[in-house]
Amino acid sequence: MKPHESKTVYDGNLFDVTLERWGEHEREIVEHPGAVAVVAVDAQDRVVLVRQLREPVRKHLLELPAGTLGDGEDPEACAHRELEEETGLTGGDWHRGAPFWTTPGFCRELMHVFFAERLIEGQQRPEADEAIELERIPVTEIARRLDELEDAKTIAGLLLYLRRRGL
Amino acid sequence: MKPHESKTVYDGNLFDVTLERWGEHEREIVEHPGAVAVVAVDAQDRVVLVRQLREPVRKHLLELPAGTLGDGEDPEACAHRELEEETGLTGGDWHRGAPFWTTPGFCRELMHVFFAERLIEGQQRPEADEAIELERIPVTEIARRLDELEDAKTIAGLLLYLRRRGL
Repeated sequence: MKPHESKTVYDGNLFDVTLERWGEHEREIVEHPGAVAVVAVDAQDRVVLVRQLREPVRKHLLELPAGTLGDGEDPEACAHRELEEETGLTGGDWHRGAPFWTTPGFCRELMHVFFAERLIEGQQRPEADEAIELERIPVTEIARRLDELEDAKTIAGLLLYLRRRGL
Repeated sequence: MKPHESKTVYDGNLFDVTLERWGEHEREIVEHPGAVAVVAVDAQDRVVLVRQLREPVRKHLLELPAGTLGDGEDPEACAHRELEEETGLTGGDWHRGAPFWTTPGFCRELMHVFFAERLIEGQQRPEADEAIELERIPVTEIARRLDELEDAKTIAGLLLYLRRRGL
């Protein structure tokens, strides 16, 4: 399954934009390398979330620890790396969720979700352009605090996790 | 809250791309007009989903009926319009969910989610470039079929709806 014609119309840093012709119609597509997100649960059964400024939406959002895949990078390796950088958490028991597309109408970003439990505390090592605040919410309180979540992967990931736990 | 500098680096049809400078770092941002999605439940308590080719991801996906906001369009009016076009469903009782950002790291798309129940069957009127197949799933079976869902707004919207219903 591929387009009749395709050309790169924007060559960016994080992503390119491609214009594809499929028969009679055109599709404008953000070429994104894909990403990972982690439902990270510590030894006290608290979900560890990150609060950070998201410049595109002009707000600080509360989200799952997450990051963009490097070129050819294995999603699980990326998830471990990003989780440790953003939260200091390591170790634990990991399970892989079914990946999902974040915005399949115009973007090729596939989000790989992981559920990690019994994680071990450590030292945060954020990248230079990340100012990240951690927030720990007991798993049993997540359902009451859904209104504070404004990010799709975070809502989807946490609700999938609560179902796994029967909560 | 705004960037120190901003310039349009791609001027597209569905979206533009802006390069913003925030202090020392740059952000590459997809300027998207926002979108709507509807958890659409018919009079037989079935969720009505749409299956369509999503060219960006080279797959047919099962999703909530959804669409892009027109310039200055009211989200609820857009949701009614898109739902009727894609599924023929009209009327019913509507409730507005909390909106969420689909990909706040690089895109300004805000997704307005609606929960509509007791909808009335009618005639589909898809746009010329949409080939849409409808699938009706009893609300009580959604939880068993989560594995078939590969789209973030659909997973988030349906799981939020199941919670509202206590399912």
